[in-house]
Amino acid sequence: MAKNLTKRSEDYSKWYNELVVKADLAENSGVRGSMVIKPYGFAIWEKMQAELDRMFKATGHVNAYFPLFIPKSFFSKEASHVEGFAKECAVVTHYRLKNAEDGSGVVVDEKAKLEEELIVRPTSETIIWDTYRNWIQSYRDLPILVNQWANVVRWEMRTRLFLRTAEFLWQEGHTAHATREEAEAETHQMLDVYADFAQNFMAIPVIKGAKTENERFAGALETLCIEALMQDGKALQAGTSHFLGQNFAKAFDVKFATKEGQEEYVWASSWGVSTRLMGALVMTHSDDNGLVLPPKLAPFQVVIVPIYRGEEELEKISQKAKEIKQSLEKAGITVKYDDRDTHKPGWKFNEYELKGVPVRIAIGPKDLEKGTVEVARRDTLEKQFVPSDETLAQNIKKLLNDIQVNLFEKARQFRDENTCKVDSWDEFKEVLEGKGGFILAHWDGTNETENKIKEETKATIRCIPFDAKEEEGKCVYTGKPSSRRVLFAKAY
Amino acid sequence: MAKNLTKRSEDYSKWYNELVVKADLAENSGVRGSMVIKPYGFAIWEKMQAELDRMFKATGHVNAYFPLFIPKSFFSKEASHVEGFAKECAVVTHYRLKNAEDGSGVVVDEKAKLEEELIVRPTSETIIWDTYRNWIQSYRDLPILVNQWANVVRWEMRTRLFLRTAEFLWQEGHTAHATREEAEAETHQMLDVYADFAQNFMAIPVIKGAKTENERFAGALETLCIEALMQDGKALQAGTSHFLGQNFAKAFDVKFATKEGQEEYVWASSWGVSTRLMGALVMTHSDDNGLVLPPKLAPFQVVIVPIYRGEEELEKISQKAKEIKQSLEKAGITVKYDDRDTHKPGWKFNEYELKGVPVRIAIGPKDLEKGTVEVARRDTLEKQFVPSDETLAQNIKKLLNDIQVNLFEKARQFRDENTCKVDSWDEFKEVLEGKGGFILAHWDGTNETENKIKEETKATIRCIPFDAKEEEGKCVYTGKPSSRRVLFAKAY
Repeated sequence: MAKNLTKRSEDYSKWYNELVVKADLAENSGVRGSMVIKPYGFAIWEKMQAELDRMFKATGHVNAYFPLFIPKSFFSKEASHVEGFAKECAVVTHYRLKNAEDGSGVVVDEKAKLEEELIVRPTSETIIWDTYRNWIQSYRDLPILVNQWANVVRWEMRTRLFLRTAEFLWQEGHTAHATREEAEAETHQMLDVYADFAQNFMAIPVIKGAKTENERFAGALETLCIEALMQDGKALQAGTSHFLGQNFAKAFDVKFATKEGQEEYVWASSWGVSTRLMGALVMTHSDDNGLVLPPKLAPFQVVIVPIYRGEEELEKISQKAKEIKQSLEKAGITVKYDDRDTHKPGWKFNEYELKGVPVRIAIGPKDLEKGTVEVARRDTLEKQFVPSDETLAQNIKKLLNDIQVNLFEKARQFRDENTCKVDSWDEFKEVLEGKGGFILAHWDGTNETENKIKEETKATIRCIPFDAKEEEGKCVYTGKPSSRRVLFAKAY
Repeated sequence: MAKNLTKRSEDYSKWYNELVVKADLAENSGVRGSMVIKPYGFAIWEKMQAELDRMFKATGHVNAYFPLFIPKSFFSKEASHVEGFAKECAVVTHYRLKNAEDGSGVVVDEKAKLEEELIVRPTSETIIWDTYRNWIQSYRDLPILVNQWANVVRWEMRTRLFLRTAEFLWQEGHTAHATREEAEAETHQMLDVYADFAQNFMAIPVIKGAKTENERFAGALETLCIEALMQDGKALQAGTSHFLGQNFAKAFDVKFATKEGQEEYVWASSWGVSTRLMGALVMTHSDDNGLVLPPKLAPFQVVIVPIYRGEEELEKISQKAKEIKQSLEKAGITVKYDDRDTHKPGWKFNEYELKGVPVRIAIGPKDLEKGTVEVARRDTLEKQFVPSDETLAQNIKKLLNDIQVNLFEKARQFRDENTCKVDSWDEFKEVLEGKGGFILAHWDGTNETENKIKEETKATIRCIPFDAKEEEGKCVYTGKPSSRRVLFAKAY
């Protein structure tokens, strides 16, 4: 194969970087740390957006849009939030350029200095709660269930396409409630939506749990998350949902009159997933031949490639190919027919394998005679000849479903094989240095121990899994008593 | 009525500002010049987006995403572009804040100064053409038909919700072609898409034409536009499509090898519409009672309001209302049933009139007896009783269609009544100071005359209409010869 793609076993990180570019998902731009999401990559992100948006609306949420810029002073209003977010950020200080006096181009006009600097939003809790103050007077105004699709900026020093970029795209839900219970229920509901989406749409198995205090969102009382395992044994946080208590309501003075006429602060949640999911998608399913896409996210699920010599043959094959395309589309399948004469079939096979198209159909002159087509599935690379008659559409539909299920099962099997219970510090380090993966171990519950483990091994507590059983144990690092195992891993 | 909405005849501008806020479309934010688009307003924008996106894809375009930030030097590469855009803009100069030494909050960390300032994109030609350089080598790579949905920032001193805000949402198409003819055809095709959308979806009649040199996009060889007339007799530019020639290809060195092996610069178009369309929507159709929405853009097309005393009556009515809701939804109509007991029917009638819901259905106990409902249409405020049987869904469907058509016809009639041919300078000024509207007049074709007319009257040439007949005439200002009339108006 002429893909020149580094093998995962050689250098996983290099494989990822190359694949994202070669498969036309994204590339670095002329702006440090900012990526260009290319049309093929963006088409996948659009499918994610459409499904998530549908799920948000089905759970009663509506979309809105809040400003990109946040006055600097807003960040100082919530003490832990400013520490977490206002430090590494893009700061707008001026609002005008002028021609340089020496004719060398344009320069900042020092006369156009802003009285108060504006921060390009790293997340929107502050500007949104500043707005909610005017939206909420009484219990009748609650709950507010709002989501925003937006770009955000966090000034990252080391960036990687999709996984960590200065600017990224995301959605951020921001809800306001009359009671603590309702806000907590919302926080859990949205985590369930994320888990459902990751597993049933992206075919990525995830573990649901709560973050430790160390790893919580700046300003949250509790951060819930879904954690996935990549093929190199490192974890990736795929979504978070925060219970914010009354912190932002207090910081921005958002009170409401209860049914009983009391005045109380409003309860809040926020939750988000980002283009980082694109990275998770690539790193979960793809292989040394290129991208592998779950059918539910593929920009097109089937590609048809004609094998021919001369225009006459192409014409006959095209007629059949177009018939097939129509019948598949009628069955709700998205299809591309690639009859370009600028590229050979072998080149096209290679290209669509690299781009992870779930199913490839090839039709040659012999197929026309026999009434068959060659069907190749991307996940297993298996090929077989099947009748090109009226049964084809249903067969392909079933095959796409099988691929979707197979990808999830394969990823789950990998995850399970790479999750182990560990009861000693030596074993902990051994596993981590060896195959990596998820480690379920006892921990004494202190920030101090968590930090020491991180310093010594780079492993962090990914979450306290919801399904962790109560069991007596001893902290793997200090030997102090523990009542449940938590999930450790090195992480992206 | 208790809407406290200023009448259009009293103060059109105030009416608009109040209506946008009272109808829950948008409001000013804590950030100067930036608005919050509220859920009801955003739902309308989402409908616009969905339809435009469908139309772009139907004409072969794909979406992508390019960086928010543009290095300052990029702007200097295209001479007229920098004059047009790099002056009033948001400039990012630093990437870090730190705690103030006096404990007063956070301040800019002067150590974190960017080597080169970043401009928050006012439009993306420069960053996109910098990217296209790597995407285009040969004629095989062309055309590139890309669109981007994004936020942009232009530092406006006087802002108005939707019409002129520092940050706004838009789409920007950026296409690359092998020939001049193809790029020009694309420029015209997209203007047609915009006109089709404005007329058939927003029910806003528009005039298609070309801008004069004065009014062209900075960097374009030709700017095409659609112009609409608002109820106060002022014009609003509702969309533009630019033929950029090879200007950006030359500025960013984007060449391609032709089929014949020659090296040539690439030809370009760009085109965009923005949240400004929300302003056009409000100002075209709405009245002194509030918003009037075309059914194709209404977040919900029908609202059902129960009229009842006591829970028992509500229960019976609700049963019928839910049946009706189901049958309407089955017919593809979006419906809200408002059975809140916190507000009276009169309050609800008022509220939905203010919010422009195209059709209101009221059901009281007498309706149950008689097998009728009261149907009120928002555009004419007419009410009538109609059978609540199986004919209702089709009747409502027809009514929604009638409303869509009626709004367009009404707006067209207004536009036609407020468009007049003028042949003398006195008449020109008289019309402009009087009822305003579109003025078709002869112009000598010079920038100088155009500028003088603007200085004296504030009227600008909105466009040279495509359908302007060739006719001998004299410039309304200078008396010099002219071969066709152009379209003048005061404009938003």
